[in-house]
Amino acid sequence: MNNKPLILITNDDSIHAPGLKKLTEIMRLIGDVVVIASEQIMSGMSHAVTTKSPLMPRLAKDEPGYKEYITNGTPADNVKLGKHALLSRKPDLIVSGINHGSNAAINIIYSGTMAAALEGAIDGIPSIGFSLDDFSLNADFSHVDSYIETITHKVLLEGLPEGICLNVNIPKKSDQPIKGFKTVRQAKARWVEEFEKRTDPYGRSYYWMGGVFQNGDARPDTDEKALSDNYVAVVPVHVDFTAQSMLDKIKF
Amino acid sequence: MNNKPLILITNDDSIHAPGLKKLTEIMRLIGDVVVIASEQIMSGMSHAVTTKSPLMPRLAKDEPGYKEYITNGTPADNVKLGKHALLSRKPDLIVSGINHGSNAAINIIYSGTMAAALEGAIDGIPSIGFSLDDFSLNADFSHVDSYIETITHKVLLEGLPEGICLNVNIPKKSDQPIKGFKTVRQAKARWVEEFEKRTDPYGRSYYWMGGVFQNGDARPDTDEKALSDNYVAVVPVHVDFTAQSMLDKIKF
Repeated sequence: MNNKPLILITNDDSIHAPGLKKLTEIMRLIGDVVVIASEQIMSGMSHAVTTKSPLMPRLAKDEPGYKEYITNGTPADNVKLGKHALLSRKPDLIVSGINHGSNAAINIIYSGTMAAALEGAIDGIPSIGFSLDDFSLNADFSHVDSYIETITHKVLLEGLPEGICLNVNIPKKSDQPIKGFKTVRQAKARWVEEFEKRTDPYGRSYYWMGGVFQNGDARPDTDEKALSDNYVAVVPVHVDFTAQSMLDKIKF
Repeated sequence: MNNKPLILITNDDSIHAPGLKKLTEIMRLIGDVVVIASEQIMSGMSHAVTTKSPLMPRLAKDEPGYKEYITNGTPADNVKLGKHALLSRKPDLIVSGINHGSNAAINIIYSGTMAAALEGAIDGIPSIGFSLDDFSLNADFSHVDSYIETITHKVLLEGLPEGICLNVNIPKKSDQPIKGFKTVRQAKARWVEEFEKRTDPYGRSYYWMGGVFQNGDARPDTDEKALSDNYVAVVPVHVDFTAQSMLDKIKF
């Protein structure tokens, strides 16, 4: 008899990402693991779902307590595939990441990593998105284990309300020790895009999107502030977009 | 001198969609209009952005008070292109749609139409997403004009707070008259996916995603309830995912 939790893992940096491998290592110490991740990088895909073409998951590894599927889907697709097609039962936990790059502040809205966690939350499955504040493909993940273990055990024990998941951002590896956890809110910030205009050999204009991140939020209890103070930032997030404060202000 | 408002229009059903043409007709009576919409259908693309390849907008129409660009971008890309590359100044209003199909309840999270409106809201530009509760490409839009005009004039006059936009869902055309507007909250609902498994000529399994919409929310003040009672449902929505109620409950 197997009493281990069943853990579904995905990400948006593809099956090849070091962050996914690190998260898988940690989760295999905690439960039975099924990885469902895309062949291609799905960074910036947000909550996109694939309905115009079929999904083709391929079972790449099948060991006791561990399966790995490689797909052509987005992170949200991969969670849906797991929940409704590939897993033998409803998972006890969905974890996504570890993302190469912060998903604090407005980054959550563009993030495939967090879309996967939110997709789990919609169905009431405890879900956590993990991100490291370091965009490098060669990012150093050597300091993350104990923080991920602590949060994972806490969520497995206590659960999370339906529709709510956690957005966990871990500071980049540095000489300074991480000070602990802070439960905080999403900072108000935005990207100011800069489009670099070029001309192709046929005379047509095209644009490369770039941008500069601007955090104009001075509140003391935001994810950006916690990260900059070297805390692991934990934001409880939900799938209800309603702006409560405006409900009684828009009158017809 | 031109005192007309500058209105940016996009959608996720592509430049060819009747819903976009209808919205453009209405907006051209109100202001100067720039349409930036994709060649391809971007339904279900959520807030995806394109950074791995360049964006190539093509000016397809250029008339006094009216421009039309066709792009290879997502709805969020199209708003970013408009804000930062194609428009001569910051638009006074961004409208998205009219979507063929409801974006009430959890549909907002998958919607490219609403991603465009949310993208406008991030930059403090008053933005509205319009959707018709009818998925048909041949949907009847003949009853929508006065409702869209009313909301548009209201938002142009009163503005919207930074980070907040409107998710407007209009009932399907029927024999029953629309009863008016209701300002409501996003219903708790979800899609229960059904994956149809098939086998390709080479013996590989693939899946088509389908699903059934389940609204389990009995509250009287939701978008789903308003639509079913034949009201235009107006939900103020924001880009802050923080689950406020959980902030003091997650302790380390």
